[in-house]
Amino acid sequence: MTTNPTSPPDAPAPTAAGPLLVVSAHAGDFVWRAGGAIALTAAAGRPAKVVCLSFGERGESARAWREGKSLDEIKALRRSEAENAAAALGADVEFLDAGDYPLLETPQLVDRLVRIHREVEPAVVLTHTLADPYNGDHPAAARMAIQARILAQAIGYDAPGAPLGAPPVFHFEPHQPEQCDFKPDTLLDITSVWERKRKAMECLPAQEHMWDYYTDLAKRRGVQLRRNAGPNLGLPHDCRAEAFVRLYPQTTGVLA
Amino acid sequence: MTTNPTSPPDAPAPTAAGPLLVVSAHAGDFVWRAGGAIALTAAAGRPAKVVCLSFGERGESARAWREGKSLDEIKALRRSEAENAAAALGADVEFLDAGDYPLLETPQLVDRLVRIHREVEPAVVLTHTLADPYNGDHPAAARMAIQARILAQAIGYDAPGAPLGAPPVFHFEPHQPEQCDFKPDTLLDITSVWERKRKAMECLPAQEHMWDYYTDLAKRRGVQLRRNAGPNLGLPHDCRAEAFVRLYPQTTGVLA
Amino acid sequence: MTTNPTSPPDAPAPTAAGPLLVVSAHAGDFVWRAGGAIALTAAAGRPAKVVCLSFGERGESARAWREGKSLDEIKALRRSEAENAAAALGADVEFLDAGDYPLLETPQLVDRLVRIHREVEPAVVLTHTLADPYNGDHPAAARMAIQARILAQAIGYDAPGAPLGAPPVFHFEPHQPEQCDFKPDTLLDITSVWERKRKAMECLPAQEHMWDYYTDLAKRRGVQLRRNAGPNLGLPHDCRAEAFVRLYPQTTGVLA
Amino acid sequence: MTTNPTSPPDAPAPTAAGPLLVVSAHAGDFVWRAGGAIALTAAAGRPAKVVCLSFGERGESARAWREGKSLDEIKALRRSEAENAAAALGADVEFLDAGDYPLLETPQLVDRLVRIHREVEPAVVLTHTLADPYNGDHPAAARMAIQARILAQAIGYDAPGAPLGAPPVFHFEPHQPEQCDFKPDTLLDITSVWERKRKAMECLPAQEHMWDYYTDLAKRRGVQLRRNAGPNLGLPHDCRAEAFVRLYPQTTGVLA
Amino acid sequence: MTTNPTSPPDAPAPTAAGPLLVVSAHAGDFVWRAGGAIALTAAAGRPAKVVCLSFGERGESARAWREGKSLDEIKALRRSEAENAAAALGADVEFLDAGDYPLLETPQLVDRLVRIHREVEPAVVLTHTLADPYNGDHPAAARMAIQARILAQAIGYDAPGAPLGAPPVFHFEPHQPEQCDFKPDTLLDITSVWERKRKAMECLPAQEHMWDYYTDLAKRRGVQLRRNAGPNLGLPHDCRAEAFVRLYPQTTGVLA
Amino acid sequence: MTTNPTSPPDAPAPTAAGPLLVVSAHAGDFVWRAGGAIALTAAAGRPAKVVCLSFGERGESARAWREGKSLDEIKALRRSEAENAAAALGADVEFLDAGDYPLLETPQLVDRLVRIHREVEPAVVLTHTLADPYNGDHPAAARMAIQARILAQAIGYDAPGAPLGAPPVFHFEPHQPEQCDFKPDTLLDITSVWERKRKAMECLPAQEHMWDYYTDLAKRRGVQLRRNAGPNLGLPHDCRAEAFVRLYPQTTGVLA
Repeated sequence: MTTNPTSPPDAPAPTAAGPLLVVSAHAGDFVWRAGGAIALTAAAGRPAKVVCLSFGERGESARAWREGKSLDEIKALRRSEAENAAAALGADVEFLDAGDYPLLETPQLVDRLVRIHREVEPAVVLTHTLADPYNGDHPAAARMAIQARILAQAIGYDAPGAPLGAPPVFHFEPHQPEQCDFKPDTLLDITSVWERKRKAMECLPAQEHMWDYYTDLAKRRGVQLRRNAGPNLGLPHDCRAEAFVRLYPQTTGVLA
Repeated sequence: MTTNPTSPPDAPAPTAAGPLLVVSAHAGDFVWRAGGAIALTAAAGRPAKVVCLSFGERGESARAWREGKSLDEIKALRRSEAENAAAALGADVEFLDAGDYPLLETPQLVDRLVRIHREVEPAVVLTHTLADPYNGDHPAAARMAIQARILAQAIGYDAPGAPLGAPPVFHFEPHQPEQCDFKPDTLLDITSVWERKRKAMECLPAQEHMWDYYTDLAKRRGVQLRRNAGPNLGLPHDCRAEAFVRLYPQTTGVLA
Repeated sequence: MTTNPTSPPDAPAPTAAGPLLVVSAHAGDFVWRAGGAIALTAAAGRPAKVVCLSFGERGESARAWREGKSLDEIKALRRSEAENAAAALGADVEFLDAGDYPLLETPQLVDRLVRIHREVEPAVVLTHTLADPYNGDHPAAARMAIQARILAQAIGYDAPGAPLGAPPVFHFEPHQPEQCDFKPDTLLDITSVWERKRKAMECLPAQEHMWDYYTDLAKRRGVQLRRNAGPNLGLPHDCRAEAFVRLYPQTTGVLA
Repeated sequence: MTTNPTSPPDAPAPTAAGPLLVVSAHAGDFVWRAGGAIALTAAAGRPAKVVCLSFGERGESARAWREGKSLDEIKALRRSEAENAAAALGADVEFLDAGDYPLLETPQLVDRLVRIHREVEPAVVLTHTLADPYNGDHPAAARMAIQARILAQAIGYDAPGAPLGAPPVFHFEPHQPEQCDFKPDTLLDITSVWERKRKAMECLPAQEHMWDYYTDLAKRRGVQLRRNAGPNLGLPHDCRAEAFVRLYPQTTGVLA
Repeated sequence: MTTNPTSPPDAPAPTAAGPLLVVSAHAGDFVWRAGGAIALTAAAGRPAKVVCLSFGERGESARAWREGKSLDEIKALRRSEAENAAAALGADVEFLDAGDYPLLETPQLVDRLVRIHREVEPAVVLTHTLADPYNGDHPAAARMAIQARILAQAIGYDAPGAPLGAPPVFHFEPHQPEQCDFKPDTLLDITSVWERKRKAMECLPAQEHMWDYYTDLAKRRGVQLRRNAGPNLGLPHDCRAEAFVRLYPQTTGVLA
Repeated sequence: MTTNPTSPPDAPAPTAAGPLLVVSAHAGDFVWRAGGAIALTAAAGRPAKVVCLSFGERGESARAWREGKSLDEIKALRRSEAENAAAALGADVEFLDAGDYPLLETPQLVDRLVRIHREVEPAVVLTHTLADPYNGDHPAAARMAIQARILAQAIGYDAPGAPLGAPPVFHFEPHQPEQCDFKPDTLLDITSVWERKRKAMECLPAQEHMWDYYTDLAKRRGVQLRRNAGPNLGLPHDCRAEAFVRLYPQTTGVLA
């Protein structure tokens, strides 16, 4: 990877040295909302793992239902698409098949997520926002992901593996950000992996109208990246970005 | 500088490659609230400049008034102390002598600050919070600092120097953080420069009771640093930190 | 219906052309908090349906308990009163008898509400606020109502009827509005149906002390209606209003 | 004008029967942020008046400065462009030439705005948001516009004309909405006047990169319009919208 | 005064042993919004002082303007009414005649208020809210009152008298509380002085329509007082209350 | 008890005349966060009861797990320590043994808490904050405590004892207050019982590093107590305090 364009020339890029874990309610969410972050991780040679709590088979597959497909066909279709997209990004994907619309919070599902945290030992966790008045599954997924990350830290929690450290958690961008109280505090430069994200989006043909929508969003967040980047002369005019909100304070050795 | 303890072993520390500018209402504020950030900057060989809008001669010099000193004596005393503290931290300090209690916002004072921004070309700006129900000068200083940073970016603003980039702005910690809506989003590891900050505090003998108060605070924020740092095994048990709040979103090439 | 007094003379009133659905935790809530909105709907010839999740038999029937009535007697009494009030307003009412104090959220109850949404096909949905530190049943009802409305939109949700459109959802006014973070963004002119609301309130004799309380509130919100209405000369001096908060943004063809 | 697509078939569109007043800090702001609302007003045969407090000569004319133009040339250029854009939208425009970067709040400028309110007698007022960490002129304009609207209501305020009614005030969308705490509560369907807004944008050649940016934004807000519109089958797939936030509660005769 | 009904039988009432200072933008504000608090103070034998920054001659005297009175007549009228109301409550009143609509913030006016604070040595300060989208004078008065209280604490502030302690500041209730982000955290039992407040209101004949409005409000806040009072059996059914919001945390020797 | 130093000399201390009930997620929480409030209650001769929903056996006993103790040993150890600490404070303690990490909300557990409320008849209730991104058990405990207090008020709730009054509820301080949106509105002077709190902390030897941490916190809150206390001359320089946030408005007979 060449010099990171959001940092000044003489600054080595900060690096999260461990794996990335993405907890997503439905197959597909991780592509639109965090595909760039995933691709950056993979490009840096770090493992990226995506957990889809459901296939989005009921709530996010309108076209397939209109075409008269069965529930099983739809789940198979979404699984296949998501696997292709994950491969395009360089990530592993696991499906918990917990059902959607509604995705129900259960201690069992949280326990599954704890075990995955202990196994993956993520350096960074990504998930949905805690508020989303348009979709109850997204906050449910976020609550379970955060709870699992907390539980995985406790030595007394009865699951294989060592207690987790305290990886930062980022919320990725919801479809209507302002309505979800999503005020970005982190703009991630994904210019260098943009083509990879676009290809991953194109693995989801049923949502073709989203390809351009999320391309436009990446440009828009790219404009904001330039506006907020200190010495922004190094950024290309047509950079692309993804927006995130931290759950916990950033810890750092330097203000920048 | 050795490896930054808040990052994993194989991660180079992020670096803000340019100067630091601190805009503070009174002499003394920069020591208690941002002394660690200043010392880290100086230790990295980068310039650090402190602007004190006033000496804190009326509002923050109670002991001197009780001792019967005159206004001029108090200003001289506060100047001298602040110069010593800045020197201990490795920073330059400039006094605008704009008066305190109240510190009045004026276009002239903002213009002074614009010119200083154009001259210093800061990579990072630090100032007070925008809310402080205990002290009207602090928000006044913050409003002027932010306005000046914005104006300095405009090529059409009539002042010497080139238009400024978009340096990040951080609010440093007020005395009663919760009452000022100060919810830290950035915890800065100042362990390596702690002794320097302590020495700078000791340059302010009239406020000796604050030395231990801010030492305790640094420990407390240090405990939080450890709690929020991902792979925190590298952090010493007795680390010290300062807390900040960003005004603008962070721009980055990697989530960490 | 004659000219709507909150609009200027040459403006036809906006009309929500479909049914109204009100989801209320206890029998009685819909009268005090949304009786005007319901009566306006009925007066415009549109269907209005009220769903009471419980009778309020434990938590809102203190007088009956003090009089020594049995649980079944109280439920019958509350049902009868609420039916009378609904009839006075021109609405249908259905009781789900899910129990109160506490009203427990269950997937089964949400499913019932989804089916009702699909059946009623509401153009507008009214329910409680999401926060109420004095009453846990109110937020529970609101959460289930909102979740049901979302689920009813999904073609893949297995329930009879077509997927729902996206009817706006309004929260009606809680008893202590400020404590429930209820900041009205919609003031509804109910002057023309005020007598009907008063009559409906009088169908609830056990809460006679509330009649004047909610009459005063209607006046107070009426004063605010006049204060916020653009060309308010058309409004009578003694107008009555109900206050609401939207969950989703208003969509409109004209700013007014 | 044909039936408004955001309302159901049998609903006449709500109409704000009086003039529109737009108070904008710089020439240009009104085009990007409220061009659709202005064009809708004009298309309905109602007067639309734009007040530009400054030309944006210092803060929003970077290209002209880089080309070496003088201050007077820049002001003339911006005036001419804004006049063309206003004409394309069907609005009158007035320039107060109060200076920008910074735009200073003065009682005199507020008084000018009071007189304009009394003269125009707006049914609706549009202005900037009260928060904008990237631009101090925008909130300054908003504060003055709101103060002027309040003062114009007072019979005792010494200015020609009758006391104003209480026109609703809407904040239009800032460049980085989330950072300005802009949570849209009103989505305005501007599909029918979209071409007119695009033409007006093209009157501002120095900011050509904004044409597509704001076209994308209109599409994005259009998608949200469809998502939030009740019976949205009537909306075209490619509708366009502008987002606004109300300062005061909506007053209405019907919930919709 | 007999036992305070909001405390349990064996609890002596808490007492603020010093004077009360009320800073109000217009003549009249103190009656509607804080008349009960003032009367309670006077009834306890403590001094109560009201400072009216203006007479409300332009913004709150619509009837007099419609009757064709001159500015001087209106000011004299408002002064006389306010003096009568203050006398009915048992308070002193001082008029600074700083003008209203707009009430302009000036260092001179703040200095006047500092001197008054030093002179009165209040144990409690009451003023407006910091937000009021309907009235710019109210927040201006609040900002000046708070700034003056802070400045009066500084020994270095050049004004007669000793530095002030740290009296608690309460915001009194605005006309449209929710729109002013007024979430009451303190409900004051004014039952015992209710008749005195009513008499004071009746000293303001031009606003006769407000008498019942604020009587209803006192009842409504009284209902809330009962709802929130621990052992509320001691409270009369028809108690009256005023609502307030603290600016600073309460300091106490016992949780209650 | 001598004169309460946070009140003026001639003011009797306010007194909450009934029992105190503390609902805490884990054994230990009540010591660090509310030990002073408990000791003050006991010192005033009022009953204080602590309910620990769990022993904190999994989430708050890291050292014991590292030492290889069994689950039963850890529970016995935590019970014993908490009993000692409660005794040192003068409180009764009851353990519900509901499990931790996660503490699951159940109707059965809420019912237990309702019965305890009816039995204890608390004049004041203390519990955790509703937000805590570091610990899911704390908000779960708070939600159950608040729900139980509400249910216990209903005469129709089927549990022994009379309906509860409306005791005030205070949230005690979480470990990272700002991250839990904990903005203290009540500072309790615990100077007179400080030694007792310190002794109680020392009953928890496994968390020895917390002794000084919470001693420092008590000093820090003590400094804030002095800063916010009206006539603070009566307060000792080295006073100690605990911070709380009210859930409901304070009801009072006097502003102070």
